[in-house]
Amino acid sequence: MREFGAVYYLDDLQIGQRFTSGSHTIDTEQIQSFARQFDPQLFHLDDAAARETLFGGLAASGWHTAAITMRLLVEGGLALAGGIIGAGGEIAWPSPTRPGDTMHVESEIISITPSRSRLDRGIVIVRSLTKNQNDEVLQELTAKLVVRRKRLPRTGLAGN
Amino acid sequence: MREFGAVYYLDDLQIGQRFTSGSHTIDTEQIQSFARQFDPQLFHLDDAAARETLFGGLAASGWHTAAITMRLLVEGGLALAGGIIGAGGEIAWPSPTRPGDTMHVESEIISITPSRSRLDRGIVIVRSLTKNQNDEVLQELTAKLVVRRKRLPRTGLAGN
Repeated sequence: MREFGAVYYLDDLQIGQRFTSGSHTIDTEQIQSFARQFDPQLFHLDDAAARETLFGGLAASGWHTAAITMRLLVEGGLALAGGIIGAGGEIAWPSPTRPGDTMHVESEIISITPSRSRLDRGIVIVRSLTKNQNDEVLQELTAKLVVRRKRLPRTGLAGN
Repeated sequence: MREFGAVYYLDDLQIGQRFTSGSHTIDTEQIQSFARQFDPQLFHLDDAAARETLFGGLAASGWHTAAITMRLLVEGGLALAGGIIGAGGEIAWPSPTRPGDTMHVESEIISITPSRSRLDRGIVIVRSLTKNQNDEVLQELTAKLVVRRKRLPRTGLAGN
């Protein structure tokens, strides 16, 4: 867990560094409400109908799992200077998110690449696993984030 | 555009086949409402504050763009038998989604792979570009979808 109030610049991060978010419990009402707004398919809206589908019961939209993951990261799961700004990434949902699941996010720094052209920032790849209370992985996200640098590197004139 | 009411099974799809969704116009209120719920960062909440950031003005959360894209696909942008069930994929947000943007989704079938073990389904890769009224690409999503088959293939006994 991070120190209270700590915010990480690109220069503070290390490959392999890990972060853990707080938790969020999802319920049927939340699942249905998100689905009505953004993903109105039966398996996200009606438990009885969902039993007849691949999901075998009510499951949250993958985009809902992604949105809750983002909330957990923003609320302290990954405290980056300048905020969490994603350029994109890879996402997978190995197991469905079910009503009653208590989710948290475990993140790990995979790579750190200072920008060559923009000295105030760089790209950090972060792998974030969203897990439930049984340690099942609901989502795996490998995100490419734009992270601010703390200080400008020395210029070539000053040496190396 | 699809025929009214047409629903595609895996067997009906062809590589290179294209689909176009309806459209949705996003406004400041929608952007802020999603952000308050799932991505409470200043550049998604406050236009004046957003001007001081990388975004240069209020921008929707990438997950909001993803959620609206899903809604447009579910509402007829990609009418698949059994619904749109994503196992995962790659996502990128090349340009920010701004208040007033009218979004639509253009999808193309990239690959079709019947399952070897499950004769009732297969994996279809679909690339979906979410564009605004100026044809700017707001999101590029390459999704791995589970799609139902219409009929079971003949068994080996019946010939090839």
